[in-house]
Amino acid sequence: MNVIGVDLGGTKILARSIDVTTGAATTRVKKPTPKDGPKSVLDAVAEVVAEVDPSRDMPLVGIGVPGLVQRDGVVDRCPNIVGWERSVDVRAGLEQRLDREVHVANDVNCGALAEHRFGAGKGVDDMLAVFVGTGVGGGLIIDGRLRDGDRGLAGEIGHITVKPGGRVCGCGGSGHLEAYAGRAGIQKEALRRVEAGEQCVLVDLASGSTIKSRHIERALQEEDPVTMELMAQAVEALALGIGNLATALDLRRVVLGGGVVDKLGQPFVDQITGSSAFGGFGADTCELRLAQRLDDAGVLGAALFAAEAND
Amino acid sequence: MNVIGVDLGGTKILARSIDVTTGAATTRVKKPTPKDGPKSVLDAVAEVVAEVDPSRDMPLVGIGVPGLVQRDGVVDRCPNIVGWERSVDVRAGLEQRLDREVHVANDVNCGALAEHRFGAGKGVDDMLAVFVGTGVGGGLIIDGRLRDGDRGLAGEIGHITVKPGGRVCGCGGSGHLEAYAGRAGIQKEALRRVEAGEQCVLVDLASGSTIKSRHIERALQEEDPVTMELMAQAVEALALGIGNLATALDLRRVVLGGGVVDKLGQPFVDQITGSSAFGGFGADTCELRLAQRLDDAGVLGAALFAAEAND
Repeated sequence: MNVIGVDLGGTKILARSIDVTTGAATTRVKKPTPKDGPKSVLDAVAEVVAEVDPSRDMPLVGIGVPGLVQRDGVVDRCPNIVGWERSVDVRAGLEQRLDREVHVANDVNCGALAEHRFGAGKGVDDMLAVFVGTGVGGGLIIDGRLRDGDRGLAGEIGHITVKPGGRVCGCGGSGHLEAYAGRAGIQKEALRRVEAGEQCVLVDLASGSTIKSRHIERALQEEDPVTMELMAQAVEALALGIGNLATALDLRRVVLGGGVVDKLGQPFVDQITGSSAFGGFGADTCELRLAQRLDDAGVLGAALFAAEAND
Repeated sequence: MNVIGVDLGGTKILARSIDVTTGAATTRVKKPTPKDGPKSVLDAVAEVVAEVDPSRDMPLVGIGVPGLVQRDGVVDRCPNIVGWERSVDVRAGLEQRLDREVHVANDVNCGALAEHRFGAGKGVDDMLAVFVGTGVGGGLIIDGRLRDGDRGLAGEIGHITVKPGGRVCGCGGSGHLEAYAGRAGIQKEALRRVEAGEQCVLVDLASGSTIKSRHIERALQEEDPVTMELMAQAVEALALGIGNLATALDLRRVVLGGGVVDKLGQPFVDQITGSSAFGGFGADTCELRLAQRLDDAGVLGAALFAAEAND
């Protein structure tokens, strides 16, 4: 069965036709994301879908969005899309425009689903995907299906507490994994150290701009003490959080991706599994694998999500 | 549909006929658990089942056992049943004796299932049950079904790490929740304190024997400083572990039971939710409820498990 997959990002909208059995993708239509609010964005999504399937052969559309998705397809909190401050009924808005069945999912969850079906998660029933970038996101597959939880937040490992009373997280909470392992949290702590008079190659490399994963890689190569300390804390936080979920869910596989993991690669994963914080029963049998970084994984996952929801 | 539920414990075997739609139980047959090995135990189970259903109206049997249950019904590690040192194929052994379809589950998971269907977990799709007694056990329900995980250990929250490098757990791991919140872990730490020269009412009350939940209650009433400190650590460990699973699974409900919780009641639950360690996104919306302690919950859950597996 062919399904239209759409990846709605802050800068571009990408749509493809996906064979959900094989994962093969054909036709590829891209458009910049409009900056003047949800109505224009939904209009643009409708246009790329129509371009992918002008003959209207595919009645099913899956779309991944960078926000909190309710079960009814309403999307809240979408800070990366300009002008999207309030809740938007993406499902209803697109079904009206397209006269097709539309299913809406979180973009990170789409990535998790793609990895499970065609990437590093192939062959296991249960899987956690953890993406380490600016923040730390995740997606949870149980018995082969993506889980959403009560509010669509299942798999959000970034906001578990790894250090009670520790660093303040972007969400306002305290001691969350994301505050230790996400680039934004690392940057905030590095800047604090520099303001307190310490030297930090990481801050020098970013030279006033946002710290990138390549800056982290470089600062580690230069054996910068502050960067090494911050990344050791990141590793410990990831080891604790992932080990605990592997234990409580009795997982055989966790897939790791995102900018920081892609850049630091297998040695970073080995540090996590080698950490003394990677404990619990789960650590005995759980394998951590690098994400395969499938082409257009977000589009693929969105199509899989729609096919599964329609099943 | 009526299903035969069996609860196999270290001291007794209990079987009942359960209407799995209403939870209503009829007929009740009890027998001491034989002490001379698995063969006698399985024979005794077959006898109680035959007594519950002499006319052979019920072709389905569910049995809860205090051990690690593989998917094929083989049971490992059953320390509470005398002579049960090696793996026992409970499913095959009983199906042969009974000529009925038999499903085998862990007893704690049976308790979780009973609470979900007819107790404090009614009305939610996803639920974690945590039982705090000598150890800390748990059971996980996702989308209305009990989850087993890769090795049958899903829900085993007792062995997540709450304090890296902390107290040694009964399993040999370090800093596990069970080492802080289970009675055996509390007893071990209390004895260590006394040996180091401290006073502890808890140890005095147990007077050389095992610490019971009522001793904990009494020592707290007497405001014994060591007991208060140990129970504050237990509360913090439970808050951290439960809060983190509520976040990662986006749970709306967690049910708490077991000897310690039954004895200390709602104030203990309120301490957990009031703890600063009860963080993460999940803490906002997750409700902790006392287990309803249903009559013969283990038997009820075993019957529900068999009905679900047979579904």
